[in-house]
Amino acid sequence: MNSKPYAIGIDIGGTNTVFGIVDRTGKVIAKGSIKTKGYSDFNEYLDRLYVALSSLIKENNAEGRIAGIGIGAPGANYHTGEIVNAANLNWGENLPIASLVSEKFGGLPVTVTNDANAATMGEMVYGAAKGMKDFMMITLGTGVGSGVVSNGQLVYGHDGLAGELGHVVVDRNGRKCGCGRKGCLETYCSSTGVVRTAREFLQRDSRPSLLRKLDPETITSKDVYDAAMEGDELAKEVFDFTGDMLGAALADFTAFSSPEAFILFGGLMRSGDLLMNPLKRSFDENLLFIYKEKPEILVSSLNEDDGAVLGASALAW
Amino acid sequence: MNSKPYAIGIDIGGTNTVFGIVDRTGKVIAKGSIKTKGYSDFNEYLDRLYVALSSLIKENNAEGRIAGIGIGAPGANYHTGEIVNAANLNWGENLPIASLVSEKFGGLPVTVTNDANAATMGEMVYGAAKGMKDFMMITLGTGVGSGVVSNGQLVYGHDGLAGELGHVVVDRNGRKCGCGRKGCLETYCSSTGVVRTAREFLQRDSRPSLLRKLDPETITSKDVYDAAMEGDELAKEVFDFTGDMLGAALADFTAFSSPEAFILFGGLMRSGDLLMNPLKRSFDENLLFIYKEKPEILVSSLNEDDGAVLGASALAW
Repeated sequence: MNSKPYAIGIDIGGTNTVFGIVDRTGKVIAKGSIKTKGYSDFNEYLDRLYVALSSLIKENNAEGRIAGIGIGAPGANYHTGEIVNAANLNWGENLPIASLVSEKFGGLPVTVTNDANAATMGEMVYGAAKGMKDFMMITLGTGVGSGVVSNGQLVYGHDGLAGELGHVVVDRNGRKCGCGRKGCLETYCSSTGVVRTAREFLQRDSRPSLLRKLDPETITSKDVYDAAMEGDELAKEVFDFTGDMLGAALADFTAFSSPEAFILFGGLMRSGDLLMNPLKRSFDENLLFIYKEKPEILVSSLNEDDGAVLGASALAW
Repeated sequence: MNSKPYAIGIDIGGTNTVFGIVDRTGKVIAKGSIKTKGYSDFNEYLDRLYVALSSLIKENNAEGRIAGIGIGAPGANYHTGEIVNAANLNWGENLPIASLVSEKFGGLPVTVTNDANAATMGEMVYGAAKGMKDFMMITLGTGVGSGVVSNGQLVYGHDGLAGELGHVVVDRNGRKCGCGRKGCLETYCSSTGVVRTAREFLQRDSRPSLLRKLDPETITSKDVYDAAMEGDELAKEVFDFTGDMLGAALADFTAFSSPEAFILFGGLMRSGDLLMNPLKRSFDENLLFIYKEKPEILVSSLNEDDGAVLGASALAW
């Protein structure tokens, strides 16, 4: 066992990459972030990450005291250390991220998994799923990720790529998804999905809405949230629609592994009851009778950024 | 460990209950069956089962040599020994089948699980999934059942009721299901689903079809199969439609646990390539790119009845 006191956790999201130095008790000593997108290629991104992380390590007197690096990233494969061309990134096919990052950081051991699996580990060790043996974690951010825990173990699957519930098809003739197919859950129940729904609702009729003051091309899920909080009916219906879709999907997911709880995590959960109320109602309505009133729908108890970073860092020990 | 040489396996299907005496090597020494439906209540069914099974035991000189009884039944809960009101049976809510059967058979230990989970165990120990750690078993009979194996373990879930993939909703405004909801997979991709599709197709237009000679009320999936094998276009389209639906559903299921294979089992699999060809094509078309060409779709290598009986008997050891 490595006796160095710190691990690095890196969470590569569709929008931001968040990283932190974590001690053995699960305390995040320091953290930082860079944008995930906007680089010409992966090497430019890696250079930027190296500069930012190195200075964080230096500032915190952690040089030579890092046991290893854990990375959570969309499409990352625990078994091979690769990222399989993720729908929301643009880094080519089968990027061997574990070895590239290890090389950049002087040979530090690097372990990777799906970003959502990493967050799931954080939730199981430190968060709302502490002590649970069967639960699902659903991350609602730019996309929708998931981690499935069954019999107390993360479900990695045969090839290490299990738990892509954001790409379960909820409407076979539905919205185009970045994965090339149509109607994936994440085209509806992510922050980008909320924006697409808002645009559709604005075009569908001519009802007055606070959102009409904004450029439809640059509307964010935060704009829709703000409008709904001011009582805007159209904006509230966007969240009702989103919650309906998600509740029905979680009801279907229950039939797989009959989880004790769904833990919801990610930027979209800042919407609070606007999303949770329709979600819970739809879940109850759509659940197969044998599961009625059993699975809980819980919000992650971890700080939004820390959960993913903690989970990623847990890989490194 | 019990030293008696035999176990009883009982598979309670929606139509027939098949039972057998199995030895420790997995050989079915003798078997029999009774109808599952058509009794006034569970006690009448149990009396009938007792008479049939007792005489089978007697004929095979197995009296006093039975280690225990394993039962696979829809909605049966491994943890509680109960059957939760199954959509296709009519035995009231929360029937304590393990204790009732044990009492009837002079106190023999009785273990129960979901009929599909039992078949899954049979497949893992003796069949096409031998040596696999991540696979899903899908049973296509009167209804659609399933068993999920992850990390080499059956996924029972928090309450013992995991793996009800026949009740994943594939069309939210679709056909009425026995479970009280709409559009469940089993309303399309079971033998009864095939019959419903045939009736719909016959009503939709007036094309000639061999099936028009039959009473639509009493058509069976075997009739549809026979017509398709004689080249009947409408009947072939029924299987195309069924395979399409099932292939798309299996593609979605892959996103959960990334299985090495799907093992298909049950009466509808007698349809052979009529079902398998459209199924495999649809599966390939609908699969998320990261899983492409990975999961195999295999037909159970066990005798149709023996798989379920063997799996159920394996519970008893």
